[in-house]
Amino acid sequence: MNQRIVLARAVGLSPVLDDFRLEEAAMPAPGPGQVLIRVDHVSLDPYVASALRGRHMSGGVAIGGVIPGEAVGTVIESRAESLVPGDRVLCRAGWQKFTVADAAPIGVAQGPSSLAAQKVELPDDISPTLLLGMLGMPGLTAWAGTIRVLKPIVGDTFVVSAATGPVGSTAGQLAKRMGARVVGIAGGPEKCAYARDVLGFDECIDHRDPDWVAALAKACPAGIDCFYDGVGGRILEGVLGHLALGARVVLVGLMEQYKAAAPLPGPNVVPLIKFRATMEGLVVFDHWPEMDNFRRRVIPLVRNGQMVAREERLPGLDAAPAALVRLMAGGNFGKMVLDL
Amino acid sequence: MNQRIVLARAVGLSPVLDDFRLEEAAMPAPGPGQVLIRVDHVSLDPYVASALRGRHMSGGVAIGGVIPGEAVGTVIESRAESLVPGDRVLCRAGWQKFTVADAAPIGVAQGPSSLAAQKVELPDDISPTLLLGMLGMPGLTAWAGTIRVLKPIVGDTFVVSAATGPVGSTAGQLAKRMGARVVGIAGGPEKCAYARDVLGFDECIDHRDPDWVAALAKACPAGIDCFYDGVGGRILEGVLGHLALGARVVLVGLMEQYKAAAPLPGPNVVPLIKFRATMEGLVVFDHWPEMDNFRRRVIPLVRNGQMVAREERLPGLDAAPAALVRLMAGGNFGKMVLDL
Repeated sequence: MNQRIVLARAVGLSPVLDDFRLEEAAMPAPGPGQVLIRVDHVSLDPYVASALRGRHMSGGVAIGGVIPGEAVGTVIESRAESLVPGDRVLCRAGWQKFTVADAAPIGVAQGPSSLAAQKVELPDDISPTLLLGMLGMPGLTAWAGTIRVLKPIVGDTFVVSAATGPVGSTAGQLAKRMGARVVGIAGGPEKCAYARDVLGFDECIDHRDPDWVAALAKACPAGIDCFYDGVGGRILEGVLGHLALGARVVLVGLMEQYKAAAPLPGPNVVPLIKFRATMEGLVVFDHWPEMDNFRRRVIPLVRNGQMVAREERLPGLDAAPAALVRLMAGGNFGKMVLDL
Repeated sequence: MNQRIVLARAVGLSPVLDDFRLEEAAMPAPGPGQVLIRVDHVSLDPYVASALRGRHMSGGVAIGGVIPGEAVGTVIESRAESLVPGDRVLCRAGWQKFTVADAAPIGVAQGPSSLAAQKVELPDDISPTLLLGMLGMPGLTAWAGTIRVLKPIVGDTFVVSAATGPVGSTAGQLAKRMGARVVGIAGGPEKCAYARDVLGFDECIDHRDPDWVAALAKACPAGIDCFYDGVGGRILEGVLGHLALGARVVLVGLMEQYKAAAPLPGPNVVPLIKFRATMEGLVVFDHWPEMDNFRRRVIPLVRNGQMVAREERLPGLDAAPAALVRLMAGGNFGKMVLDL
């Protein structure tokens, strides 16, 4: 018999024990091109909680469905040419002891949503469970955000939240090797000590300390150049107040938002992730050297009437205070110019 | 005699009429290298309200100090070689009828913080007041944010807030000429009609309409590719919910934050402007093709102990529900892996 854990009922904000049910089921049988897999290791990831609520891009879970999760297993019966019994495979078995999956063709990379079982090709001295963590999806998340987005340079101050998790610890260690000064944010003294002593981070701030933002500012005296964030909410809020000039922030997850009973107040940055969006601050002074180039392009358009510049002209010095008050209330209509 | 308007007292959140005082003063006298200028036109800009509170990067205003502002004037007395009486100049006179300024060398571009008077070099058929608006700092702000940051491509949906102001109207018109579909956001039916009928925007949404977010979504059926924002607050919040894949957001000002009595709730994005920062959302699936490259780099580091991957191994299927519950509460320490 197979054993599996299924979704027992619709879950609330965060899963609780009664949401799950352990059940027995018939041993699944592989069809042509498929293998039967004994599941050896299953990954537990935060995205599963979102998936149980039907709020993750990987899809939802039906009541009675097996709880999802990536897994490492061993082929025990094969009806596929590319895999033989004894082969170690990566698959998306979920929380169950046995599963059946299509056999992925050897040497063909599988996409993130592939349900096929792929033979593990890893040096013998590397634990295959790392394919579920630092060498898998969490690690690639860290790699992409650090190497491709934040691109820390030597001497940058690189702050990472959830610093001891599989994503944060990988991001911070990569940044450290790239020459950055790495400051972690984690919950509790034990995790902070681990980040400093084992991961080699320069500092780690305990966000359970009520004064953690002040401690962060003290740990980043030149400001924060890179922020790798998987938490959002009050952590993002605290870090944004201490950015350095030209700072880069990458959002890879917003754990604090996912768990919130109601939408958190203020601009909701969740869509920045969902839509792979960028948000950037601009100060016109930085572009001042381009003033001549800009005017050269726009003057002909204004002259030809192809661009319209509306002005609200105000008579005399006396008109200025009331005009500024009105301007701040959005009561102007066009560029306000005082004629003296 | 000169006439000028000075700051009468410390201002509150938004300036009120009693914060200003009109006073007479002796006519200023130019020193060597300086000119006396009759001020013809003074620009009124929202940044002045921040400056009066000492909260703008251009600096604060002392009690009794002249209210700042860019101006166009005419030289009436010169002790400088580069300017003669009758020359039309751009200067930072503020709210007064006459001012004295250093003469900027001819042909040398002045930085944004220059207090020198610069001769206006503009075709005769272009109003010099436009140097305070579409052809000046507001216009350059629009140019940089549109041309250099958002870079709309043909067919993009480009949304711009404060759509009829000097910045927003310039940004939207530039985007329109670059082939984007432009949707403005403005306050009131008159401004919206102007954005559509005169500026040529495809749509304009009245943010005073309680259902403005639904109207915006309807006007942007394929989502918002570019958002040029000078407002922040509830406008930014409303737009972020309707981004398209790969959206770009540029923040050039946060008028709604500047006016708020208390800090607005949620992540405060003001530092994104102050620090010219970028914030970007990331989804690991987009980087999946890089999995092999990533593993090739990291495996040697893990093997040599140069990178540490902590795992929390859990025994048996039964352990999964409680482990996931604990994971969501941040109670795990290392990558959670279930061993079956």
